[in-house]
Amino acid sequence: MSNTIGTIFKLTTFGESHGNAVGGVIDGMPSGIEIDMEFIQSELNRRRPGQSTITTSRNEADKVEFLSGVFEGKSTGCPIGFFVRNTNQHSNDYDNMRELFRPSHADYTYYEKYGIRDHRGGGRSSARITISRCVAGALAKLVLRQLGISVTAYTMQVGHLSIGRDYKSLDLSLAETNSVRCPDAAMAEKMEQLIKEVKRDGDTIGGIIQCVISGCPVGLGSPEFDKLHALLGRAMLSINAVKGFEYGEGFEGVFARGSEQNDIFTLDEEGRVTTKTNRSGGIQGGISNGQDIVFRVAFKPVATLLRNQETVDIHHEKTVFKAQGRHDPCVLPRAVPVVEAMAAMTILDEYLRNQAVKVK
Amino acid sequence: MSNTIGTIFKLTTFGESHGNAVGGVIDGMPSGIEIDMEFIQSELNRRRPGQSTITTSRNEADKVEFLSGVFEGKSTGCPIGFFVRNTNQHSNDYDNMRELFRPSHADYTYYEKYGIRDHRGGGRSSARITISRCVAGALAKLVLRQLGISVTAYTMQVGHLSIGRDYKSLDLSLAETNSVRCPDAAMAEKMEQLIKEVKRDGDTIGGIIQCVISGCPVGLGSPEFDKLHALLGRAMLSINAVKGFEYGEGFEGVFARGSEQNDIFTLDEEGRVTTKTNRSGGIQGGISNGQDIVFRVAFKPVATLLRNQETVDIHHEKTVFKAQGRHDPCVLPRAVPVVEAMAAMTILDEYLRNQAVKVK
Amino acid sequence: MSNTIGTIFKLTTFGESHGNAVGGVIDGMPSGIEIDMEFIQSELNRRRPGQSTITTSRNEADKVEFLSGVFEGKSTGCPIGFFVRNTNQHSNDYDNMRELFRPSHADYTYYEKYGIRDHRGGGRSSARITISRCVAGALAKLVLRQLGISVTAYTMQVGHLSIGRDYKSLDLSLAETNSVRCPDAAMAEKMEQLIKEVKRDGDTIGGIIQCVISGCPVGLGSPEFDKLHALLGRAMLSINAVKGFEYGEGFEGVFARGSEQNDIFTLDEEGRVTTKTNRSGGIQGGISNGQDIVFRVAFKPVATLLRNQETVDIHHEKTVFKAQGRHDPCVLPRAVPVVEAMAAMTILDEYLRNQAVKVK
Amino acid sequence: MSNTIGTIFKLTTFGESHGNAVGGVIDGMPSGIEIDMEFIQSELNRRRPGQSTITTSRNEADKVEFLSGVFEGKSTGCPIGFFVRNTNQHSNDYDNMRELFRPSHADYTYYEKYGIRDHRGGGRSSARITISRCVAGALAKLVLRQLGISVTAYTMQVGHLSIGRDYKSLDLSLAETNSVRCPDAAMAEKMEQLIKEVKRDGDTIGGIIQCVISGCPVGLGSPEFDKLHALLGRAMLSINAVKGFEYGEGFEGVFARGSEQNDIFTLDEEGRVTTKTNRSGGIQGGISNGQDIVFRVAFKPVATLLRNQETVDIHHEKTVFKAQGRHDPCVLPRAVPVVEAMAAMTILDEYLRNQAVKVK
Repeated sequence: MSNTIGTIFKLTTFGESHGNAVGGVIDGMPSGIEIDMEFIQSELNRRRPGQSTITTSRNEADKVEFLSGVFEGKSTGCPIGFFVRNTNQHSNDYDNMRELFRPSHADYTYYEKYGIRDHRGGGRSSARITISRCVAGALAKLVLRQLGISVTAYTMQVGHLSIGRDYKSLDLSLAETNSVRCPDAAMAEKMEQLIKEVKRDGDTIGGIIQCVISGCPVGLGSPEFDKLHALLGRAMLSINAVKGFEYGEGFEGVFARGSEQNDIFTLDEEGRVTTKTNRSGGIQGGISNGQDIVFRVAFKPVATLLRNQETVDIHHEKTVFKAQGRHDPCVLPRAVPVVEAMAAMTILDEYLRNQAVKVK
Repeated sequence: MSNTIGTIFKLTTFGESHGNAVGGVIDGMPSGIEIDMEFIQSELNRRRPGQSTITTSRNEADKVEFLSGVFEGKSTGCPIGFFVRNTNQHSNDYDNMRELFRPSHADYTYYEKYGIRDHRGGGRSSARITISRCVAGALAKLVLRQLGISVTAYTMQVGHLSIGRDYKSLDLSLAETNSVRCPDAAMAEKMEQLIKEVKRDGDTIGGIIQCVISGCPVGLGSPEFDKLHALLGRAMLSINAVKGFEYGEGFEGVFARGSEQNDIFTLDEEGRVTTKTNRSGGIQGGISNGQDIVFRVAFKPVATLLRNQETVDIHHEKTVFKAQGRHDPCVLPRAVPVVEAMAAMTILDEYLRNQAVKVK
Repeated sequence: MSNTIGTIFKLTTFGESHGNAVGGVIDGMPSGIEIDMEFIQSELNRRRPGQSTITTSRNEADKVEFLSGVFEGKSTGCPIGFFVRNTNQHSNDYDNMRELFRPSHADYTYYEKYGIRDHRGGGRSSARITISRCVAGALAKLVLRQLGISVTAYTMQVGHLSIGRDYKSLDLSLAETNSVRCPDAAMAEKMEQLIKEVKRDGDTIGGIIQCVISGCPVGLGSPEFDKLHALLGRAMLSINAVKGFEYGEGFEGVFARGSEQNDIFTLDEEGRVTTKTNRSGGIQGGISNGQDIVFRVAFKPVATLLRNQETVDIHHEKTVFKAQGRHDPCVLPRAVPVVEAMAAMTILDEYLRNQAVKVK
Repeated sequence: MSNTIGTIFKLTTFGESHGNAVGGVIDGMPSGIEIDMEFIQSELNRRRPGQSTITTSRNEADKVEFLSGVFEGKSTGCPIGFFVRNTNQHSNDYDNMRELFRPSHADYTYYEKYGIRDHRGGGRSSARITISRCVAGALAKLVLRQLGISVTAYTMQVGHLSIGRDYKSLDLSLAETNSVRCPDAAMAEKMEQLIKEVKRDGDTIGGIIQCVISGCPVGLGSPEFDKLHALLGRAMLSINAVKGFEYGEGFEGVFARGSEQNDIFTLDEEGRVTTKTNRSGGIQGGISNGQDIVFRVAFKPVATLLRNQETVDIHHEKTVFKAQGRHDPCVLPRAVPVVEAMAAMTILDEYLRNQAVKVK
């Protein structure tokens, strides 16, 4: 149940790691938008496995096929169905996990919930299903671009290696120039070394992705349960391996006092309301205030280790498991486009909902 | 828009700080549950202002009146309407903020979004509207109690004062014995001192609430967008002043490696599947695994300071604002029951949804 | 479950016939609308019992109290909570039905579904709960009025007495000048006589209400499941005692051929697209085409008879039931404002949704 | 927007008549159900064009491909993605309608709403998109079969030719033995003659489909807006060409008095509650009462005529249109499986929701 997210701009997804395909339906895409297929595929390519030595070597073209909703290069307002075939499956890699529960994976909980599970590659719980999110995110970005709104995520921290949360002095576009997707080249190299080292140990490591949304108009989000940061938080927490979400000052904000944290309102050169600081992370009272929206997402180390781990199986017998197959030692580089996709979808959805707050 | 949360067990709220009343409608309350009115009122009393010297002196009985859905002491399965009158309003306290935007409050964003706002006491953005959540949470708790599920939140940190996240050695029930709602008596006293000190300065301070859900069966939550932690996160992030949410190891999990974080499956004395550790925080793949569900919520320092602050008004003129009225220097003690309420509602909702996953 | 209707403009209701109150929450009311309280109360008065000799003599002022969402006479965009106290309850009238199932009422199905029921006056299944719909409908009408959209329903048929579906030659406003709410004065009198006759027999009678929505812009409704007539139909079918819904030519359209039914497009004097006829009832492909939206709603004879009827009770014993209390012999006169209310809400909801179809 | 229907068992559809494919996602399929692929394809075949001389000669295999949610022959509880390629498109047939609005079609309203439309074969408004409903309906039927619930629809009336609404003496399975899908063989032949005659004239004709649901347990549906007949009505009204919906006595019920219409409760041989008659159509107070659920759906004559019709185009010029291509002179025979599909989906959805009304 509930493989749908969004209120006006909605994505419904389907697919498992080693089934026939992954895909989805995008409902509520505004009509009349030019669909830049190359851009969409390029966004998918950012998420694709096999991009570098620090990501899984599963190598699939991940070519998306659109089935509806686009006519003569433009969105029609009708739902956009799409899918990506699973082609490079090595289902046999998973034969040894057919009946056992991998530690810290979804095997046990799925089995107990549904009484059945597709064990191959984690089935529905595989990170492969984020492909659908990237497709929908790319479409959302096409609309946001037209509205002057940009969404940029990057790797801020891997293990103990962090570039800190201040991004104003960084050229965020540099994140795409290295395999870790960190805009600080020197740190990116260190992070890459760390990931390789961890991989060599058959181990994994986590980190933090920061996302910055610029150009967002005042007024997105709603007062009560649909506060903009609550919707962003839910969207981020729904990404595989995410353990935490914070915006603005986040958890560190508990150390300072109110007088140190409030964002003082002032006027810019054109006499428009602005804030002297942006500790609120661009959202006040659950509604965007026109400043950059800034949030961070914590990813745990991937649960799949190329090492022996004790566990139990469906017959409640103890056993030992060692992963085979192709796995990421660190999920962050490939999660960056997923974070952006979910952010773009959330912002577009709220943008469209906001058009219905007053009668025109 | 969207003052409703939940799929089966749903709460819709209404009300502003200084309007006639706050209240809501609970839809999907299971039928046949005994409604313990004293318990419900006692839950409201935990949230009530004026409980101690470290909370606002606004003093209201907050007596809830139920309007429907209960017959001869039991829930009928029909919606439960309820409200609490606003009685102790000092609307005049807010005359000076009629046209200005308080720093880090929702004044500016509401005004821009809706073109109009009820400025008195923050209107809809006031923490007073969490009353409705406590009522619905109390009803949810009545059901969960019957199912053997308990939900306990407490103040874990205020400013730099923290008791750490390990709760196994604590008697969590002690949290209700002091005004800060921290189960460690010695630390509670320090926290209370800190809050008083901050209050004396006309300043405010934030902190972290931890919540533990015990007795939750395996199988709550869904794979994709309705992962249990995503729903809990959204519920928590929708509480006033919340800036972050994490579960299990959360943000700190980025420092350790996968081999240090995985929860190894084993069998308990009765041969049931369990985990040796609970770094996952009771949720794997978005679905509860039967272990304690553990999460933390970060609250910023309240934005209302009893000090002069620069700001601007609706005419885009610069001005100075000093709050009057009665305010909390630290939101945590009164937020504890709100965190519990949102958690209880989320768990019950997913419990009920889970009953529809297979045909009986 | 599911006491909510609407996507953007949403109504959630609560209340039973003989509980404390009936009421609801309106979420998504556009901000900045002047709230004409007198108009709202006047709409409620149209639904009120005791208006004439052909309606129930239960006599209640049905005075609505608003609890939120309105500030200085205007909607704020925040949810509007409201309720109407139940004051003139004669709960004792229902003592004899505490344990039995009234024929063709909801007693049996509620009892089986929930295992408990509030038997007094039908509880949640009472037509009294349509009060909440009238309040929300009145608010919707305030917005539609501003947009030049009018919603008018009237009694078209009672028993075999019908004025036919052609309304172009009628002055629909005359419907409000008689107790049956039929715009044809002569027929209204006959209908009134028929209802009195039926009442004298302790019997009841049904009929058909027609509704005309004028001034509706082109483009409301959606292609697939949210076709405008599907949403209108669902809204109408949710009204107590409704057994059928049709729009345009409806059921009679099955007798004619396509060549006799198609609405030929042409141009009006200003060169705008219009249709020569309106057999489609203002909706084509599920979307409004700018012509009058016309539909009909069939109401069964009220199930409550002032006569002996055989039945069974909760102990599965046969028994005999004769209704006491105050009842309508014909539901139509008081259902007219309810039909209008549901239509107004549906149209406003789709109007607002349509604002989100393209980016502005 | 809103190409999704259902609360727990949900179908989201996509696709246009002459795009790449039509398909959808089924979310909330109960886990552990054996997926009988042959049955599903056979249901699709019932809807398929080219079955007989009275349906369109567009000839497509309509072979469905499943992409997810089924593992080793059983449903996993994960979403089921599927599609059917459009293969036999004659897009050129529609070149002459690229810029004009066909009378009583969705061309004009789509164009005005979205500012763009896929004109080929009606695009999204084509009856071809009901394929997705048949797939989802077939899956729902697999579950209902297991629960002892059957759903049977048939052609009751074409033009003036009707077999009446009483079905007790009919063998409904005979409907599948003739091309009109009417269980009365003699009448079926007359209907077929009528349709051929109409076709010869380049004209079209409508009719009424009746649907009977047997074996439905007591308790499906909800009191207020989700009354079972309101949900069925909405589902039926969302099918192309439908102009009306009624259940039980429907529109004819307005002629009789309450004393003639009430269903008297009695006890069956096993002492269970039953009704002497079933004028309510199996639903009382919006909730199923265990009797057969019976409703009727009115279909208009198809709007596409093989004759000249006046109309206008997007430049607001008058023109003349004569349809080319392959069209049904009467939609009913192929609509029968669609009615069943929507009914099956609605019943299953409510069955699953009903499992969440009480805690187990």
